[in-house]
Amino acid sequence: MTYAAPLRDMIFALEEIAGIGEIAALPGYADATPDLVQSVLEEAGKFAAGVLAPLNRTSDQQGSQLQNGVVRTPDGFPDAYAQFVAAGWNSLQFDVEHGGQGLPWALAAAIQEMVTSACMAFSLCPLLTQGAVELLASHGSAAQKRTYLTKLVSGAWSGTMNLTEPQAGSDVGALRARAVKDGDVYRITGQKIFITFGEHDMAENIVHMVLARTPNVPPGVKGISLFIVPKFQVGPDGTLRDRNDLRCVALEHKLGIRGSPTAVMAYGDNGGAVGELVGEENRGIEYMFTMMNTARLSVGIEGLAIAERAYQQARDYARTRIQGRAVDGDSPSSVPIIRHPDVRRMLMTMRAQIEAMRALVAFVAGSVDRAKRHPESGERARNQSLVDLLTPVVKAWCTDTGCAATSMAVQIHGGLGFIESTGVAQHFRDARIAPIYEGTNGIQAIDLVSRKLARDDGAGMRDLIGAMKTTSEAIKSGSEGQFLAAPLNEAIQQLSIATDSLVGAVKQDRMKALAVASPYLALVGTVTGGWLLAKSAAAARRRRSEAAADGDYLAAKESIAAFYAANLLLQAGSLSAAVVSGGDSALALAEDQF
Amino acid sequence: MTYAAPLRDMIFALEEIAGIGEIAALPGYADATPDLVQSVLEEAGKFAAGVLAPLNRTSDQQGSQLQNGVVRTPDGFPDAYAQFVAAGWNSLQFDVEHGGQGLPWALAAAIQEMVTSACMAFSLCPLLTQGAVELLASHGSAAQKRTYLTKLVSGAWSGTMNLTEPQAGSDVGALRARAVKDGDVYRITGQKIFITFGEHDMAENIVHMVLARTPNVPPGVKGISLFIVPKFQVGPDGTLRDRNDLRCVALEHKLGIRGSPTAVMAYGDNGGAVGELVGEENRGIEYMFTMMNTARLSVGIEGLAIAERAYQQARDYARTRIQGRAVDGDSPSSVPIIRHPDVRRMLMTMRAQIEAMRALVAFVAGSVDRAKRHPESGERARNQSLVDLLTPVVKAWCTDTGCAATSMAVQIHGGLGFIESTGVAQHFRDARIAPIYEGTNGIQAIDLVSRKLARDDGAGMRDLIGAMKTTSEAIKSGSEGQFLAAPLNEAIQQLSIATDSLVGAVKQDRMKALAVASPYLALVGTVTGGWLLAKSAAAARRRRSEAAADGDYLAAKESIAAFYAANLLLQAGSLSAAVVSGGDSALALAEDQF
Repeated sequence: MTYAAPLRDMIFALEEIAGIGEIAALPGYADATPDLVQSVLEEAGKFAAGVLAPLNRTSDQQGSQLQNGVVRTPDGFPDAYAQFVAAGWNSLQFDVEHGGQGLPWALAAAIQEMVTSACMAFSLCPLLTQGAVELLASHGSAAQKRTYLTKLVSGAWSGTMNLTEPQAGSDVGALRARAVKDGDVYRITGQKIFITFGEHDMAENIVHMVLARTPNVPPGVKGISLFIVPKFQVGPDGTLRDRNDLRCVALEHKLGIRGSPTAVMAYGDNGGAVGELVGEENRGIEYMFTMMNTARLSVGIEGLAIAERAYQQARDYARTRIQGRAVDGDSPSSVPIIRHPDVRRMLMTMRAQIEAMRALVAFVAGSVDRAKRHPESGERARNQSLVDLLTPVVKAWCTDTGCAATSMAVQIHGGLGFIESTGVAQHFRDARIAPIYEGTNGIQAIDLVSRKLARDDGAGMRDLIGAMKTTSEAIKSGSEGQFLAAPLNEAIQQLSIATDSLVGAVKQDRMKALAVASPYLALVGTVTGGWLLAKSAAAARRRRSEAAADGDYLAAKESIAAFYAANLLLQAGSLSAAVVSGGDSALALAEDQF
Repeated sequence: MTYAAPLRDMIFALEEIAGIGEIAALPGYADATPDLVQSVLEEAGKFAAGVLAPLNRTSDQQGSQLQNGVVRTPDGFPDAYAQFVAAGWNSLQFDVEHGGQGLPWALAAAIQEMVTSACMAFSLCPLLTQGAVELLASHGSAAQKRTYLTKLVSGAWSGTMNLTEPQAGSDVGALRARAVKDGDVYRITGQKIFITFGEHDMAENIVHMVLARTPNVPPGVKGISLFIVPKFQVGPDGTLRDRNDLRCVALEHKLGIRGSPTAVMAYGDNGGAVGELVGEENRGIEYMFTMMNTARLSVGIEGLAIAERAYQQARDYARTRIQGRAVDGDSPSSVPIIRHPDVRRMLMTMRAQIEAMRALVAFVAGSVDRAKRHPESGERARNQSLVDLLTPVVKAWCTDTGCAATSMAVQIHGGLGFIESTGVAQHFRDARIAPIYEGTNGIQAIDLVSRKLARDDGAGMRDLIGAMKTTSEAIKSGSEGQFLAAPLNEAIQQLSIATDSLVGAVKQDRMKALAVASPYLALVGTVTGGWLLAKSAAAARRRRSEAAADGDYLAAKESIAAFYAANLLLQAGSLSAAVVSGGDSALALAEDQF
């Protein structure tokens, strides 16, 4: 149950897919030199493997405990968090003006992968803080930034997102928490559920970002405002003052990520928690959306990260578990199960999925950096459009694929996979939340089709398809690896057909279009993953001639692209057909026929 | 978290797919009249829903507990088991000569589905007893049958299978438990793991069927013998005597089926447990195989059963959870999520998978009955061959599909799906064992390709393909529903191509053939499921003109077949392509490249 950060593949993805060299040339990213990137990744890898990974299993067993309103996180969490903050891992990607290190998001994404692989439950605390930082950096007043932002950026304080209420999950507009103006502040009352790290013992203060309604506002999302509601109120000099009128009333008993406290929070039992309005009243949802892209990308990274952790455990088990004779030899003695072809196939599937996901994340993360820092406004806009388009794909495709990979890791362990002490079942349980939170994967698919595709009649997707075609043409006319061109081209064609069909359907029959949104998202993920692996294979081929090339690793890149093309990319055909003609039958039953 | 047995679809599958009318005409099955079948199913449904289903959640929370060598099963299990035995549910499908009721296995399979849906952990006790009954009925001596069989058939005593040891899982031949002759009996020593219901408080005695080695035997499976090792020794008059020298030393802490005790058993700590040899020495594996088909079919039924339970829970939740506006209306108020197209798609997917699985189980179960009772030896052989061919498909395809369906049920519940008290996460956890035990799904795929396909160079599979083609031709030339013919025909064609390819590959390059065994098995399951749904749709169309026809249900059958054809059957193309050309790349990496 150890973990080693996959540095080699992370650096490859950063260099060849994210284009970290180009990113370092953007204004403000000059620090991201190859040496710095390498050493930051190495240090983060050591921290993840040495400090966080050993906490993963024990934190699952202990869980977080609520006693008399105080949440005790698992043994080792507070100390590991102190080290995390002291080493500066919390502030890596945040702007220098707020006390961050201003490093590229592409690099931060790799580090987020490591931290999550090492201990997903732990990783959620900085993940939620990241959301609060983005909200306040974009919409906080100068005073709010002064008071809260530096502390959140360093990680001395942590942040939370308070959206969900029992009757308001996916439909945030149904929330009922109230905020009433009281002089300079607001008094907040109401109950919030599913609040990740809503209460804990790792940070000095917890800054809750709470959605609530002021009196006499429109129903739905248009009447929602955003408030800062700190656990301890803060004086103008930044000192902690009175405990605010909020408390954790329960922790959920969950399928996975048990180390992370998921709190039911009660606000205002004694007259109202003191909250500060962020920005203007009734614009809370709009503000919340500014951090949604990053949060969804981060959850997508969870799918990748947990798959990587499960893969490493399954691979190590397959190398050491001796069972059965080899198929390809007449050796009388038993062999490690990695020699068995079906086990090999499972490992290869996981590996191909992981490298496709890592490439996709690197591609989008690189676009995030370009959207933010590129000197040309056209390039910024183009990259932002790409990020918007692919964010639901990263979120949903990577988390679904992560679940599939963890299940395969369980399977490789045979009977032991079902025994909790083996540890691999924990990855299977932990991974299962990622398709649900931060907008269910169904909502991601709807976002992809009804917003991202519909907003420009598929133009952005066609641009992406054009980039894929360029790669496939280049491969076809290259001197090696042409065998990848035909399956890639066929898959691109299928994506193109499905896109055209759906762009039409979403205008004519929205029910039908949304009934095939999920297979369409899976199609985009599958084909984009295949495209980026083909690109990776081409880059690997080029690099094999370099001095000091890591030949085995680079050759594996080509094998993995070939495996993906021959075994996974093919699903593009059936997914595309389902998009084109599966919608009617999906809606054929009346409600009472179920 | 209630459960209602899906009687309507069970009866439909029995009548239209298993051919229960024909089966009742076989010698010895005359009791299986339509009235009896209906009333047995209704009574079993009441028992499953009323007695077993309420124990499912609590048994998961309590688990089975080991204290001082005694295993206490969850509250309600002993009482429910007593009722189960008293009502005769344990003896339904066993031969009359051993005290059974001699009813068709097709009917028993439907009841097994109900019992498993209601409480999978509970269902494992009779499931293991069934294995012991089959072993003793086939290979026990007259005296052994007298002593043990009637008690096992009634369920007064339960049975277990003791194969696995820490170093001997999938490779049973590596087992080390010892048996030394001592007068008329043998003294058994050794440790066995993963013994389902190895110790419990529900039956008067537990009859362990134990594989062990006598001295000086060949290594591997050829030196293994089978022994009856009862918890309490039994006098010639059937009375219980001394406690045998065996004990439960630990229970596993598992991902799921927590109500069912999974025991580590120690035999012979005090000189050797008394065991009786079954049949002849060194033929233990051969005997074990006689119950393997049934056991694997039963585990396949678990996949179906847990999917049905999860479906019912997800459907009920989707009907009552109010969240979000309807896409197809301008109603200002929120609607039940079953109105949302993506939720509808998930429910439809589960429903189509479930009905395909139920049809497949009915088809194979009907063949079991024909193989056993058909007056013509040619028909018996033909049906047995079909059962042999499809048993690994039922086991692996239904359990993989069951896992997918339970995951979808979690997804439909959104955030609540991840909270243990909702109960749906339990189905997701419980389902995960079924692809692992009774031969992992990888081993099923290897069995399908290297035994079932190779033994007759694919002739049996081609016969099945021929039957599928007959259906597709009949649909094409019928007056309605022809739209199903083209996708079915295309899928059959893909199965045919893959079969031809694999029959060749398994002779030329076994490693490569086995590297695509899993996609081949998935292909066979997917296409067979689509075929049987198309057959069901045709039957439903015919029956709609009958008086008192249940029009809504029969119309749904057609919609479900159409959905399956347009959304799931299409995977045949990518699976077939992976079989034909995915093997090389699956094996391309060297072990140290992982």
